[in-house]
Amino acid sequence: MSLLVIGTLAYDTIETPYARRENVLGGSAVYFSVSASNFSAVRLVGVVGGDFEKKDLEMMSARGVDVRGVEKVADGKSFRWAGRYEADWNTRTTLETQLNVFEHFDPKVPKAFRDSRYVFLANAEPKVQLRALEQCTQPAFVVADTMNLWIEIRRDELLEVLRRVDGIVLNDEEARMLTGERSLIKAAAKVRELGPRYVILKKGEHGAFLVGEGVRYALPAYPVDQVLDPTGAGDCFAGGFMGYLAAADCVEPATMRRAMLYGTVTASFCVQGFGVEVLEHKRRAQLESRFNELLEFVTL
Amino acid sequence: MSLLVIGTLAYDTIETPYARRENVLGGSAVYFSVSASNFSAVRLVGVVGGDFEKKDLEMMSARGVDVRGVEKVADGKSFRWAGRYEADWNTRTTLETQLNVFEHFDPKVPKAFRDSRYVFLANAEPKVQLRALEQCTQPAFVVADTMNLWIEIRRDELLEVLRRVDGIVLNDEEARMLTGERSLIKAAAKVRELGPRYVILKKGEHGAFLVGEGVRYALPAYPVDQVLDPTGAGDCFAGGFMGYLAAADCVEPATMRRAMLYGTVTASFCVQGFGVEVLEHKRRAQLESRFNELLEFVTL
Repeated sequence: MSLLVIGTLAYDTIETPYARRENVLGGSAVYFSVSASNFSAVRLVGVVGGDFEKKDLEMMSARGVDVRGVEKVADGKSFRWAGRYEADWNTRTTLETQLNVFEHFDPKVPKAFRDSRYVFLANAEPKVQLRALEQCTQPAFVVADTMNLWIEIRRDELLEVLRRVDGIVLNDEEARMLTGERSLIKAAAKVRELGPRYVILKKGEHGAFLVGEGVRYALPAYPVDQVLDPTGAGDCFAGGFMGYLAAADCVEPATMRRAMLYGTVTASFCVQGFGVEVLEHKRRAQLESRFNELLEFVTL
Repeated sequence: MSLLVIGTLAYDTIETPYARRENVLGGSAVYFSVSASNFSAVRLVGVVGGDFEKKDLEMMSARGVDVRGVEKVADGKSFRWAGRYEADWNTRTTLETQLNVFEHFDPKVPKAFRDSRYVFLANAEPKVQLRALEQCTQPAFVVADTMNLWIEIRRDELLEVLRRVDGIVLNDEEARMLTGERSLIKAAAKVRELGPRYVILKKGEHGAFLVGEGVRYALPAYPVDQVLDPTGAGDCFAGGFMGYLAAADCVEPATMRRAMLYGTVTASFCVQGFGVEVLEHKRRAQLESRFNELLEFVTL
């Protein structure tokens, strides 16, 4: 079933205690698309500058990502982000954010994309998420991501997003900030009262859990031997999750649980390389053995 | 099957952002015994001062804890600990530790206890753990706990403990400190090279995982609505885990996995009250519904 994502395409500079990389292909919509394309065709809406490399769009196209929704601003520069991770991987410092062409981004969903049934609104200013969603004529299952900044400075618009989506993806800090609840279970319940039927709480290396209509499911992260770069792991989780749901065209609890596993497995490949350098060479068949390994790891 | 624990019996003063309690019955061996006694008879070895209340020993006896191994130093004071938790529950500051009668504790395992098959060496100076273990004539399955202090200042003795036990319980920070490995999977593998066939990594609110011969099993914590006091949760986990194994008299992987679930459920009751005030009123039958709920929460 058709799957649309709207979000950023970016070049990142990433510092870790072990390495530094410049101009790494990134951005929420890139991570999502590369991940979801293991399961389903993907329709990508975003904006890039004249500096965005053709080969990067070609890589995505080759994976079944329809890039006709990527607007090009020839005299602009692509979104750029620079950040540094501490050795615990949980502490991330943003060194620089250049919105560039994303600053005045007014998303245009191509006609051919408007009938998309599954929609992922990657992290962006809530009004941009709403603008994109309004152009979808028959969305069946819409999930949004967000960040602490929008919870702080765009709360009302974010609440409007929450009223319109089926699911929301939050990390534990965001869930607490949004609801004022320390207990994640209480926080998830409060978020559901704000609109979404499903809440996915991401806890990084500690896994994720899903709370929704008739379903509660907790998963640890897949235990990778070595993390190289955690950037994008949440978007890759969302990509695996939504890609699997769109392919199954089903949001029954049993399918949602399997989607959580695929999201977790997809994110685990993400963190084993910089950007999408590992994931861009994966195909669904290569996810299956890790899926089975994770399943064994969590099964009584 | 017979289950022995050696550790502290204490009175704690506990501050949380929401409450403050003095003279709370605590200590690793108390938390463990009250928890394990849901599954199995328990033999308790420890030391108390003249201030230790008879009713506290009676409460444990009534639960099937054999307290004949609790030495009384009439003119001494019981172990006392005071600590404060921050709102995130993960940050704990020790305000005071009075070893008192525990300072020169030379554990004496009563004759009637020496044939114990399952043994838990709760957190104590490694040489005390070794002294207790040496008196056991036919231990079949021995698990030890420890803490960062002993990793730092008693490393050699702790390594000796590790060579002699079947399993070790560590939190993530301790595992990293002991091995120098950031990745918990690598850390667990390195700990196993030091001796124990089984490593249980506790991650507090993020759950626990077990790595050992033919078994890897990860579990999230049971999501309680409200934490009142996390003190003793790790010992309660160990109590549920070892109590279930001793009752089953089996350490096969399938049994170990169920034991992890019972440990998790037991710890979840612990944190819902101060000290053992919730757990002391529980019986195994009352754990079963939460066991089933947790199992559903983690099952595909």
